[in-house]
Amino acid sequence: MTETEPLTTPYAAQVSLRWSDMDAYAHINNVQFLRLLEDARVIAFRDWFDGGGAGDKTMLDEGVLVSRHEIEYRRPLGFRHAPVEIQMWVSRVGGAGFDVAYIVTDPDGVGEGERPVYAVAETELALYDFASESPRRMRPDERTSVRSRLGAPAPFRRRRR
Amino acid sequence: MTETEPLTTPYAAQVSLRWSDMDAYAHINNVQFLRLLEDARVIAFRDWFDGGGAGDKTMLDEGVLVSRHEIEYRRPLGFRHAPVEIQMWVSRVGGAGFDVAYIVTDPDGVGEGERPVYAVAETELALYDFASESPRRMRPDERTSVRSRLGAPAPFRRRRR
Amino acid sequence: MTETEPLTTPYAAQVSLRWSDMDAYAHINNVQFLRLLEDARVIAFRDWFDGGGAGDKTMLDEGVLVSRHEIEYRRPLGFRHAPVEIQMWVSRVGGAGFDVAYIVTDPDGVGEGERPVYAVAETELALYDFASESPRRMRPDERTSVRSRLGAPAPFRRRRR
Amino acid sequence: MTETEPLTTPYAAQVSLRWSDMDAYAHINNVQFLRLLEDARVIAFRDWFDGGGAGDKTMLDEGVLVSRHEIEYRRPLGFRHAPVEIQMWVSRVGGAGFDVAYIVTDPDGVGEGERPVYAVAETELALYDFASESPRRMRPDERTSVRSRLGAPAPFRRRRR
Repeated sequence: MTETEPLTTPYAAQVSLRWSDMDAYAHINNVQFLRLLEDARVIAFRDWFDGGGAGDKTMLDEGVLVSRHEIEYRRPLGFRHAPVEIQMWVSRVGGAGFDVAYIVTDPDGVGEGERPVYAVAETELALYDFASESPRRMRPDERTSVRSRLGAPAPFRRRRR
Repeated sequence: MTETEPLTTPYAAQVSLRWSDMDAYAHINNVQFLRLLEDARVIAFRDWFDGGGAGDKTMLDEGVLVSRHEIEYRRPLGFRHAPVEIQMWVSRVGGAGFDVAYIVTDPDGVGEGERPVYAVAETELALYDFASESPRRMRPDERTSVRSRLGAPAPFRRRRR
Repeated sequence: MTETEPLTTPYAAQVSLRWSDMDAYAHINNVQFLRLLEDARVIAFRDWFDGGGAGDKTMLDEGVLVSRHEIEYRRPLGFRHAPVEIQMWVSRVGGAGFDVAYIVTDPDGVGEGERPVYAVAETELALYDFASESPRRMRPDERTSVRSRLGAPAPFRRRRR
Repeated sequence: MTETEPLTTPYAAQVSLRWSDMDAYAHINNVQFLRLLEDARVIAFRDWFDGGGAGDKTMLDEGVLVSRHEIEYRRPLGFRHAPVEIQMWVSRVGGAGFDVAYIVTDPDGVGEGERPVYAVAETELALYDFASESPRRMRPDERTSVRSRLGAPAPFRRRRR
């Protein structure tokens, strides 16, 4: 159980770290955390929208753009060979997009006691049609999938003024 | 004049793009924007805190950590040889840290009419003493410098729920 | 069986790709291939030198530096969810270092017919002692391990003039 | 004057470092050196082939692919605010491509005495037509420009076995 529990059973993406994700402080660099969130979306969307897709195309290829990121760094993360676990759920559903909330933590069974939280984050996504180069509405099947994953807002500590 | 004007005359960092900052969508990748903000802090802190420092050490070497990022992407940014201009000011002063607000735009004189805004962002920074490996308070000279750059909150469009 | 077969049974590291490894040409960028080779060394050295190490420290932490890279790009590599396989062996053993040769290919069982080769590469490594900040000789146990993996030179097509 | 002087007056590209180019060893990471060489090509090709081009398109957009890299690391490079200088010339001219040789050093006037060499490298480039998705021959104007920059082979220390 993590220190900060979402109100829904989240999807858990196992994301590998690269040694080079560390910076001169010898910890995973703050910008690289967003790279891990991107990897988590690539993994998750393959299951959420593409039915475990036979091919290597994901929703990213058809059209979803990032319009906003927010991230709180809770603890420093050092390089490890094992993946980190990124718990993900939907925190908002709109007509032409949705928000994904994340908790970056250790996989279950690693260490003892409560699982540490390295970061909490949220990404606002806008659907886009690359063919027509314009925003698009969510399709019924996409909306069903997104709604089935709807949970609480991302558990940020700080409220923006 | 930008579309979104801060209430103080901001510091303007000229930050170079790399061709590799573009992703498979052929635009500067959303995560790489945060890399540009990091470059802007490296440039700015040399002037804000190190007196245009003779050496290559900046506040980053003594100890400032990122505790939070927030960023709104307004327009796609393509690669250009010229730098982008990142306007920066302080949006909050605390006892052991401060927030920096940014607007990513074109340098003055580029193009005609109103300058486009590619992104608006804010970073919460916590001061740290690497020697003792613990948080620290702002020094009087740091506080003076930070207060002299205090302006409005970052002009985000969206308020978090 | 690959198109280009080393003269020894190589170690095979499974290395994950990141969507962001692609550049504006929508293929894995040439510089990012070297990032994959670095990941392969991190994985391999854990087995070659650290006995499948209980911890997350590898030879990289004690001291091995890259003194030279050479790489030939054979075929474009697109993003895929599955890892690529990087076959690795030792192509030279010296007193204070050794060379690693690599073939970047698909994992066995992927596709039909002969496995494609995306790149052939070689890295010259120099051992270093970070504590004393000086080069060091190979220890007997390291030499034994490295010698056990010695194979042919990397199968480059082009000989440098 | 550098320690290793090419036999022609080289083109000199001033390339900015990023703080994040450093890895956990607190030096510019070996893979990131190739990122700097890529930046140098982007800068250089704008002058070599595009007449100081009005636009932001370079030869990279029309079609030049990297088929091979070779690099020797001579000295560790730490982060500095000032750019590094990357001296570049052509070391081979072929029918459908050419090689670029590089020396990574400090800009003139930095420090005293002989300028340090951080790395020596060479890239084999193949011309490509993205429209038809096939290799192409060098155009007469490209050949003239490339030939005018022809110099000695890259001054590598080590000859591959």
